[in-house]
Amino acid sequence: MKVNLITGGAGFIAVELTRRLLARGDIVVSVDNLSRGRQEFLQQFLDNNRFTFAVADCADYSELREAVRICAGAGSITDVWHLAANSDIPAGIQDPGVDLKDTFLTTFNVLRLMKDVGAEALHFASSSAVYGDLGGIPVHEDIGPLNPISNYGAMKLASEAQIRAAVESYLPRADIFRFPNVIGIPATHGVIFDFINKLKSSAGELSVLGDGTQKKPYLHVEDLVEAMLFIASKASDRHNVFNIGPQDEGITVREIAEAVCSRVAPSASLQFGKEGRGWVGDVPRFCYSTDRLAGLGWTPTLSSQGAVSRAVDQIATQLGV
Amino acid sequence: MKVNLITGGAGFIAVELTRRLLARGDIVVSVDNLSRGRQEFLQQFLDNNRFTFAVADCADYSELREAVRICAGAGSITDVWHLAANSDIPAGIQDPGVDLKDTFLTTFNVLRLMKDVGAEALHFASSSAVYGDLGGIPVHEDIGPLNPISNYGAMKLASEAQIRAAVESYLPRADIFRFPNVIGIPATHGVIFDFINKLKSSAGELSVLGDGTQKKPYLHVEDLVEAMLFIASKASDRHNVFNIGPQDEGITVREIAEAVCSRVAPSASLQFGKEGRGWVGDVPRFCYSTDRLAGLGWTPTLSSQGAVSRAVDQIATQLGV
Repeated sequence: MKVNLITGGAGFIAVELTRRLLARGDIVVSVDNLSRGRQEFLQQFLDNNRFTFAVADCADYSELREAVRICAGAGSITDVWHLAANSDIPAGIQDPGVDLKDTFLTTFNVLRLMKDVGAEALHFASSSAVYGDLGGIPVHEDIGPLNPISNYGAMKLASEAQIRAAVESYLPRADIFRFPNVIGIPATHGVIFDFINKLKSSAGELSVLGDGTQKKPYLHVEDLVEAMLFIASKASDRHNVFNIGPQDEGITVREIAEAVCSRVAPSASLQFGKEGRGWVGDVPRFCYSTDRLAGLGWTPTLSSQGAVSRAVDQIATQLGV
Repeated sequence: MKVNLITGGAGFIAVELTRRLLARGDIVVSVDNLSRGRQEFLQQFLDNNRFTFAVADCADYSELREAVRICAGAGSITDVWHLAANSDIPAGIQDPGVDLKDTFLTTFNVLRLMKDVGAEALHFASSSAVYGDLGGIPVHEDIGPLNPISNYGAMKLASEAQIRAAVESYLPRADIFRFPNVIGIPATHGVIFDFINKLKSSAGELSVLGDGTQKKPYLHVEDLVEAMLFIASKASDRHNVFNIGPQDEGITVREIAEAVCSRVAPSASLQFGKEGRGWVGDVPRFCYSTDRLAGLGWTPTLSSQGAVSRAVDQIATQLGV
């Protein structure tokens, strides 16, 4: 019987992951400091006796350790899905302490916990942001050099480094998932969420950061979680690194803005900036190789375009428009 | 006029660097928490009015900031040579908190200081340990994947990641020096230092961790500092990454042990272990490409063999044998 700890358990990826793990009969212990995640997302699981939730900040080791002790008993955790992280890239550029605490130190503490309780497998939500701006060449998992251009990406890479060393010394297994942009519900942030909220407050016009040509791969959260579970069950090394993403080159910000307007405010006018990137640390164009994952036998059900269409509809409904 | 801050200023590489910077007319502000560095090494500089030293732990931002304020006045630092780090690899595997504090958080604070005071250039002592065990293929600076197998290497890579992101957002320039094993005086740790001390306490026998076949490149500290200064003056990018090392494949532990015995205790018998590596996190064989540095126009004066010979003699003298 798998006993799963999910950190960042009230975030939107964790909600989908929790749903899937409970559906297959696992036990789920969920912790979150509720800085961005929302406890109401977990309401749907509270009557399942294989689910427990505790408010705890993983950047504080004693809080994390105590929450796990209360929820699961010492020594029972088999798998940790470490999703806790700062998800606000500009905030981390403004104040590097945000990514230090919420992304790097949470990983440090998760590893310490796993060593203390003898947990078997870490499944880590890393990011395509570890690669940095490679100028459009196909980015596979073994590429070098890694040049993260945001603190967000830097602290994800820094976390990967810690995990790699832990596998060498005491951790039986780690899966490193390098996520693309992930969309779906329940949304708490991100480009679609922001666009819809902008249109809710000012329906006639949508102003977009950057010139709209930034093109990135987007994956729907349902596909993402399916891929995570697939890798966890099929990959056979002690240390597995996988890009997860759609099998296309992505979709532009302009196309996303148009999809949002089309669903929410068809008569709105679109305003674009002049820069090729939306903010410092934003990677304007990205060609992401998912060949390793395809080779393992997994492909997504939705393209970037399909993921955006589905997520726009879901998030609009979530936001009551 | 360059105003240099050296962190880890009482360590052995810093002593050589301080000597060189003062010799060319620079100002040097040196800070060290004296956990491993020794203040007596700096005695030779105290009558130079371009040199100041303060005891400060760079893992504590207010201590670091205050030390710099007292020594240099706010805003005057132009260059930071960040050498402060844990240098005891096994200690960091036993307790990852050591590398977190002494290697990673010191880098975090150095970057924060540079942002606060508007310093121009960071020169960072990284390590070949960021690469991990690549099985003897030539390791150039852009290679991937980076798989550090010790917390020491992981926190050096994590530090590099932070620095890369800082260059993207506010730091005008950073040089990343990936050091090989560095030897010379004043020695405080390391294989030659350990061997000589073992022979001092038990002259008839020298027992060696591992089977003696581990082969690594060694560079003399005088060559290392020369290369650092060369890169700082000649490399022209905002973010420069250079392997620094000898132009050979290195020297085995057995050869080092023999060189030490030959100088210190010619009749001692050598005892080897059975493992191909000395400890968890030890990389047994390493082929280090220094082509980028050679292309910039620098080559070392000593081979690995020559560096070991010179360092054995110097360290034996330092230790009074």
